Amino acid sequence: MTDQEREPAATGAAMSSGPQEHAAGGAASQVRDETAELRAQLAQSDERYRRAVADYDNLRKRMARDVNREREDERARVAARWLPVLDNLELALKHATAEPASIVSGLEAVRQQALAVLADLGYPLRADLNEAFDPSRHEAVAVLPSTDAAPGTILQIVRPGYGTDERPLRPAAVVVAKDA
Amino acid sequence: MTDQEREPAATGAAMSSGPQEHAAGGAASQVRDETAELRAQLAQSDERYRRAVADYDNLRKRMARDVNREREDERARVAARWLPVLDNLELALKHATAEPASIVSGLEAVRQQALAVLADLGYPLRADLNEAFDPSRHEAVAVLPSTDAAPGTILQIVRPGYGTDERPLRPAAVVVAKDA
Repeated sequence: MTDQEREPAATGAAMSSGPQEHAAGGAASQVRDETAELRAQLAQSDERYRRAVADYDNLRKRMARDVNREREDERARVAARWLPVLDNLELALKHATAEPASIVSGLEAVRQQALAVLADLGYPLRADLNEAFDPSRHEAVAVLPSTDAAPGTILQIVRPGYGTDERPLRPAAVVVAKDA
Repeated sequence: MTDQEREPAATGAAMSSGPQEHAAGGAASQVRDETAELRAQLAQSDERYRRAVADYDNLRKRMARDVNREREDERARVAARWLPVLDNLELALKHATAEPASIVSGLEAVRQQALAVLADLGYPLRADLNEAFDPSRHEAVAVLPSTDAAPGTILQIVRPGYGTDERPLRPAAVVVAKDA
């Protein structure tokens, strides 16, 4: 497309080099040489530009594929981390029918394993009990009067929170001590 | 840089337009006009190229950030899916101490919930029992003689497999019927 736009200019240059301007001698021919040189540089620059645009498009397509693949890979990695937890839950279930008394300790081990998986993914169980209530990190589900806790203290964890301040996963649902 | 490379050519063209070539008349001046036009086009093309290269670099940096963020987001999404399973496991544990008999049905519900999470993520529990052994999908942990199963039939699932043919998560560990 850019080549075709330049076509008329190139033709004009060829036509202007007729015999009537022979008198101009070396100077005109020098200008014509320069014109040819410029035209070559322009073609080169345009080609370089076209390649850069093609590179950009290829990068965009490749990156879109990469993002998809990374997402899929991460999903599989995280899901796979939970399979041993499920395996142990199933083992506990099998043993439960034969020996119901031992199941509680087996389940506690499964729970600890699940907490370790979460912590390892970057989402540790938060220790919010007796901390000061912070609406950015906690979800108050009830407010109760308390004689021995300062107002705004977390009295009870209804549903534990996971993650860190930088990477919160779920806020804890808590019961908070009433303001005086 | 490219501008500086072109500097000598431009200076040469300016010097050649002295009074001694006045005889060339309109033809030479037409060539000079063309030279100026070409030089302008070249500068434009070079500038366009530089912008395309800068765009490419920016895209590369942005995409690298996107990939990281997507990975982080997917990790949080998948991890968060398991929290209700963990919540119910903890509820089952709490009830277990008070009422040990009901725990098995509670645990079975937790297991079903975990399987639903996996299936929803695209990794359903595979039904491999009595299927023909396929080394690309199964992991044989034992080979046993069998009187009523065809050789190569899967007799027992030691550890269940998850995923699909297109998105396998973990192959099942199986016991296979011996070849006759």
